[in-house]
Amino acid sequence: MGEKTGTSGTAGDGTLGIAGVGLIGGSIAAAAKARGLSRRIIGFGRSSDRLQQAFRAGLIDEVATDYSAACEVDLFICCLPVDRIAESITSAARHMRPGSIVTDAGSAKHAICQAVGPTPQPRVKFVGSHPLAGSEKQGFEHADADLFQDRTCIVTPTGPGCESALPSVIAFWQGLGCDVVQMSPKEHDQILARTSHLPHVAAAAVAAGLQEGEEQFAAGGFRDVTRVAEGDPDLWASILIANREAIGTEIAAVVDHLAAFSKALAAEDAQELSRLLAFAKARREAFSRSFS
Amino acid sequence: MGEKTGTSGTAGDGTLGIAGVGLIGGSIAAAAKARGLSRRIIGFGRSSDRLQQAFRAGLIDEVATDYSAACEVDLFICCLPVDRIAESITSAARHMRPGSIVTDAGSAKHAICQAVGPTPQPRVKFVGSHPLAGSEKQGFEHADADLFQDRTCIVTPTGPGCESALPSVIAFWQGLGCDVVQMSPKEHDQILARTSHLPHVAAAAVAAGLQEGEEQFAAGGFRDVTRVAEGDPDLWASILIANREAIGTEIAAVVDHLAAFSKALAAEDAQELSRLLAFAKARREAFSRSFS
Repeated sequence: MGEKTGTSGTAGDGTLGIAGVGLIGGSIAAAAKARGLSRRIIGFGRSSDRLQQAFRAGLIDEVATDYSAACEVDLFICCLPVDRIAESITSAARHMRPGSIVTDAGSAKHAICQAVGPTPQPRVKFVGSHPLAGSEKQGFEHADADLFQDRTCIVTPTGPGCESALPSVIAFWQGLGCDVVQMSPKEHDQILARTSHLPHVAAAAVAAGLQEGEEQFAAGGFRDVTRVAEGDPDLWASILIANREAIGTEIAAVVDHLAAFSKALAAEDAQELSRLLAFAKARREAFSRSFS
Repeated sequence: MGEKTGTSGTAGDGTLGIAGVGLIGGSIAAAAKARGLSRRIIGFGRSSDRLQQAFRAGLIDEVATDYSAACEVDLFICCLPVDRIAESITSAARHMRPGSIVTDAGSAKHAICQAVGPTPQPRVKFVGSHPLAGSEKQGFEHADADLFQDRTCIVTPTGPGCESALPSVIAFWQGLGCDVVQMSPKEHDQILARTSHLPHVAAAAVAAGLQEGEEQFAAGGFRDVTRVAEGDPDLWASILIANREAIGTEIAAVVDHLAAFSKALAAEDAQELSRLLAFAKARREAFSRSFS
């Protein structure tokens, strides 16, 4: 797994298409250029103005406001918000050549993989991806060629129909600096509910509790716990909807956990509070050891 | 308010006593030395070894493992865990000279201020303090002379008995670089429940949900949301217990907020999710503007 292949389906010597040239799409473009992974990058999007700006910034080589130019693409990566990925891929795939490959960068995978399937068109293969990198910032102005360095990228192939494309997709993310891990879309969504989506909801719930005029009484702890709450509301609403079942389960789990704190507080049980906090600390430290 | 006074009660030209030479106590010592606020600093603690290390590190000038040396102190600052502050102050005050001043750095104020009162001994005056600065790190090895620069410090005088000491306490924190704000201990505790204590509990509840083996699938969002969960469990258990009533109210509020997310998710109501997230984002941005 993960060996770089030299078929025409790889982007290495071909044309890369990126739909949605924002923070993620722009960083993929910057990284692919910096690492010589693509001869040519076409940026797809609705806003000609924004794409022209990305062109002038040197991130993309060509601008396309519809998918007809997808016929020139060897690897198409959809970096749109999750509620628009399946439709974008389905539309683009109609124009793509046999042997070309499609992937995405969406934060929820099951709904997208189910809607697109392993072969959105005959001999056009789709393998879902999710690079675990990002920022609360938006727009290609914050693009970073090193955003993916040493980050995990999860790939979620859905069947024998797309397996031949897997080595190329893996090689592409590895080329950007990622460690690539393969799992099913469902497993991805259950794990990401705990590692990303629930933390986002919790951060928003904490941020929402800050009363007006109290800002100056919040410090570094509040800053970090709530940072991600500055993310784009529409973008995150679409992620939460796409993974609503697993997130609902995790919200229930965190509410149970909060109830354990409430119970220990009401009982003035410092020992139990300390036990709850020590368990959380151990889990956080396990994460720290793995996150460099 | 806040004008530096020149009475014998100020630490400016006198002796500073610090009980608990850890991250906060050590940083106060480092800042007071760097800014020439104290002629001499006595470190009080139970562990002679740790105090000797702090002495060798140049943070304190003298070591005291009981409170008899408090008779030499003009300003005594208790930086112990909140469950030990009242007892420490009561013990130290028995040795202190008339006209000397006591304060603390505890993260919960009502219980401490009620237990200590404005005058723990006749003519020994207590004004509670809480500098809003810290770290998940522990120990004077992480002491930072700039930890308090531009941070808010809340002071909570409790009555006419301690009012004459207020200018000196305010001047001391200002001397360390703080912006000083005065409020009642109860008001402090209600605000800090929202800005610090509840965020800590939420971070712990999120960190606790991370399953073993999933560490590599958590990224920058998880890192920030859960950072404070690496704080010392016993230290935080004592803070939570000391402010249990207000924190209980805030846990209930955040559970209500999470329920609103669950409801919107179950209804697949992207618009409502977006509204909830946009409200949280606006609150977080108000904080960002005030936090430099």
